[in-house]
Amino acid sequence: MGISFYAPVIEDYGVVYGIFCMFVGDHLSGVQHVIMVLSGKGGVGKSTVATQIALGLRHEGKRVGLLDVDLCGPSIPRMFNLDHQDIHQCPEGWLPVYVDKDQKLAIMSISFLLENQNDAIVWRGPKKTAMIKQFLSDVVWKDLDYLVIDTPPGTSDEHISVVENLKSYNPDGAILVTTPQAVAVGDVRREITFCKKTHVPVIGIIENMSGFVCPNCSECTNVFSKGGGEALAKEFHVPFLGHIPLDPKLTQCLDEGKNFMEHYDKSPTLHAIEKVINTLVRIDRDLP
Amino acid sequence: MGISFYAPVIEDYGVVYGIFCMFVGDHLSGVQHVIMVLSGKGGVGKSTVATQIALGLRHEGKRVGLLDVDLCGPSIPRMFNLDHQDIHQCPEGWLPVYVDKDQKLAIMSISFLLENQNDAIVWRGPKKTAMIKQFLSDVVWKDLDYLVIDTPPGTSDEHISVVENLKSYNPDGAILVTTPQAVAVGDVRREITFCKKTHVPVIGIIENMSGFVCPNCSECTNVFSKGGGEALAKEFHVPFLGHIPLDPKLTQCLDEGKNFMEHYDKSPTLHAIEKVINTLVRIDRDLP
Repeated sequence: MGISFYAPVIEDYGVVYGIFCMFVGDHLSGVQHVIMVLSGKGGVGKSTVATQIALGLRHEGKRVGLLDVDLCGPSIPRMFNLDHQDIHQCPEGWLPVYVDKDQKLAIMSISFLLENQNDAIVWRGPKKTAMIKQFLSDVVWKDLDYLVIDTPPGTSDEHISVVENLKSYNPDGAILVTTPQAVAVGDVRREITFCKKTHVPVIGIIENMSGFVCPNCSECTNVFSKGGGEALAKEFHVPFLGHIPLDPKLTQCLDEGKNFMEHYDKSPTLHAIEKVINTLVRIDRDLP
Repeated sequence: MGISFYAPVIEDYGVVYGIFCMFVGDHLSGVQHVIMVLSGKGGVGKSTVATQIALGLRHEGKRVGLLDVDLCGPSIPRMFNLDHQDIHQCPEGWLPVYVDKDQKLAIMSISFLLENQNDAIVWRGPKKTAMIKQFLSDVVWKDLDYLVIDTPPGTSDEHISVVENLKSYNPDGAILVTTPQAVAVGDVRREITFCKKTHVPVIGIIENMSGFVCPNCSECTNVFSKGGGEALAKEFHVPFLGHIPLDPKLTQCLDEGKNFMEHYDKSPTLHAIEKVINTLVRIDRDLP
């Protein structure tokens, strides 16, 4: 007898799934671009980058969806101050949670399905695979310009499931996030190998937490060294999307669920993020 | 037909396993203390903390083993500058890699089994479970005072497997690592729930990256805010093991595989780590 592992509420999602199966449509065919945000290492700021990309694209007038497939550590809802929202159901499937009134930024995360935010999702691989499949097939995204998918660290069940379920939709590819130090870059190196093996195009590499500007003396220190992400991009001949410096104000905004773009429009961190967005939109425009 | 996922070298480890099965002994019964290092969120410095705890315990004269069960993003070997070491075999099983000549600090990681460090381990859950089981049963640790287990972020296959395979060995428990910001603390909250569900005692919480001392003006800035880990420890009535501030010199040492303890003995970060070690050794002494 093994130890009993369970996740209280979602344990029963199979029943909900059964009911919905009858109605499920093809909810991804109305999505123009699918972008995955990947990183071999955790804590390099994948969710932060995914959130800022989603906000930035919306700022450019795009309709954006943000799907959080980090089932054991979902942090997207918290970053939008949407921790206690519930998922609504319609005959076509699950309605995502909208951040704004004009419904241009939609979010889906396992966090919305938890009764208690402290609950641990103690699931082995096959269960995670089923949940991700459901997220990709049953959420009514409607017409989107971009679907940004935030993944957990690593190259395992979640990543294989996303890639397998998306392959018929021709996703744009993956943005790889790293911090500058060698240990993190080593993990992203493995992520590039993953993309090659699974035929996922690499849109580019972002070097996050690249330097910290002391709010007291304005001296920029390379807390985690510098340049590792850029060097990696050169080595593998993939585009480098930019350095994003650490900004304590961004952390604060994410903790409080505030929109960093609206509150600190002079931050060098914001400018770095805007550069990434411009590159993404330019790629879009340049496509035939 | 799914996409073909594979990990080139280790794909065949089943054969090696088959050969060893005949000889496998009970290699954990000579281990006095087993400590897991956990965190719901990635990049909070689990591997750094695990490495420093292992080094600190060895510094106290203990015989220490460090097992890296982060199969998709192993970083322990790099931190000891042991990236290109191979595993040796003996009739009893796999010999770990020793950091020092007097064989007081032994390491095991999937990284030692890879032919190319850039290879991605693209494995679903069941395969990871089998590998971890093998790490716990087949590595010849010999007599150890402490076995420190570094885990990947989350609460999934790796964690369930470690807990299930260790339960007959009565492990000391888990050290939870968090960074101070609310998003990270939220993930560690889930990790506490995991420990409760799986009956793993919580040894204590460490708040890592707690403040950054500017090398230019010595002003300490709370890059990721402060106090979240300590508040969490109070809330759940578990011991708080200390704040460890960010030190760019520690990152540099880990990137270059140098022993931080030997090179920067005046760093406040080192003092914080030593406090944690003292607490662990005191717990050991105080036990009946």
